[in-house]
Amino acid sequence: MTTTDTQTPAQQLVQFLRDEIPLAHAMDLQLGTVDNDMLSLLAPLPPNINDKGCAFGGSLVSLMTLCGWGLVELALRRRGEDCDVFVAESTVRYLAPLWQDFRSEARLAADADWNLFFHTLNARGRARIEVACVVPGEDGQPAATLSARFVAKRRVPEPVQVEQPV
Amino acid sequence: MTTTDTQTPAQQLVQFLRDEIPLAHAMDLQLGTVDNDMLSLLAPLPPNINDKGCAFGGSLVSLMTLCGWGLVELALRRRGEDCDVFVAESTVRYLAPLWQDFRSEARLAADADWNLFFHTLNARGRARIEVACVVPGEDGQPAATLSARFVAKRRVPEPVQVEQPV
Repeated sequence: MTTTDTQTPAQQLVQFLRDEIPLAHAMDLQLGTVDNDMLSLLAPLPPNINDKGCAFGGSLVSLMTLCGWGLVELALRRRGEDCDVFVAESTVRYLAPLWQDFRSEARLAADADWNLFFHTLNARGRARIEVACVVPGEDGQPAATLSARFVAKRRVPEPVQVEQPV
Repeated sequence: MTTTDTQTPAQQLVQFLRDEIPLAHAMDLQLGTVDNDMLSLLAPLPPNINDKGCAFGGSLVSLMTLCGWGLVELALRRRGEDCDVFVAESTVRYLAPLWQDFRSEARLAADADWNLFFHTLNARGRARIEVACVVPGEDGQPAATLSARFVAKRRVPEPVQVEQPV
C-alpha cells in the first residue's frame, strides 16, 4: 500500500474526529504520519497547556487514546469491517514534562496479533486487541506511554422498515 | 471544618483550572461537592460528547485525573504546603457508556494514608500518594474508574535578587 493509500483514509478519520468530538477539535488534533503498522497524531502545545506551561496530562492521555483508537479503526476499515471500537482499559505513565508541540505514535502491543484479532472478530462478531502508544519526549525518550485494550464489535445492520400490519 | 470552609478553596481551585488549562475550560469543568475526604467535579455532556453520542473517553480520564489532582492539591493547601503536584501513573477502566452529564469523585485509595504522605513530605520534600476516582454510571454502578499515583514536590523559593558585583 502506498503512502497516499493510507494517508487519505487517515486524514478523513482525523477530520471525522475533529467534527464529531468537541474535545478533539479543542485540542486541535492533527494527522502526523500513517502506515499499516503505525498511526501518529499531533497536538500543538497552546490549546493543550497546563498551569505549569507544559502539556496537560489530560491532553496527553486523550491524544494517545485517540491514536490507539484510530490505529484499530483504520485496520478495520482496510478490511471492510464496520465496527464500533471502544477503549476498555488503559495504563498511562507520565515520564517527563513536554514544553512544545507533541505527537503520539500508536502500534500494536508486542504480544498482539492482527490475524488473531480478525479471526476472533469473524468467529464471534467482537474481538479485543492491545495497543501501545508513546509520546516521544524532547530528548527522544518517551515522555508518556499508554497501554490500552480496545474492543471492536460488529455493527448490527438497521432492520429494514416494513409497514406494520393493521 | 464546615462546608463553607472547604467549598471556597475548592471553588477557587476549579476557577484556577478553568483559567489556566484551556482543555478544562473546553470541558466546562465545574465543582460538585467537597469535604476533607472527597472531591467531586462535574462535566456537562455536550462539550464532552463523542461520535457515538455518549461521553468521550478522553473527557472521562481528564475529569478523573483533574479530580484526583484537586483532592491532593486541596489537602496540601489546607496544611499550608506549597507544592507542585503531578500525576505519575494511572490505570483507567471504562465500564459503561454515559449518555448524560457526569461527575467524578476522588478519594484516597484504600491503602493510602495522609499521615504517611505528609510525614514523607516533611522528611524528603516530596511524597507520593494513591488516589481512587470513580465516575458513577446511570445505574449507580461505576461507569469509569481511575487509580492514580500523584507526586507532590515542595516548591523551592525563588532566590532573592541581589545586584551582581561589577
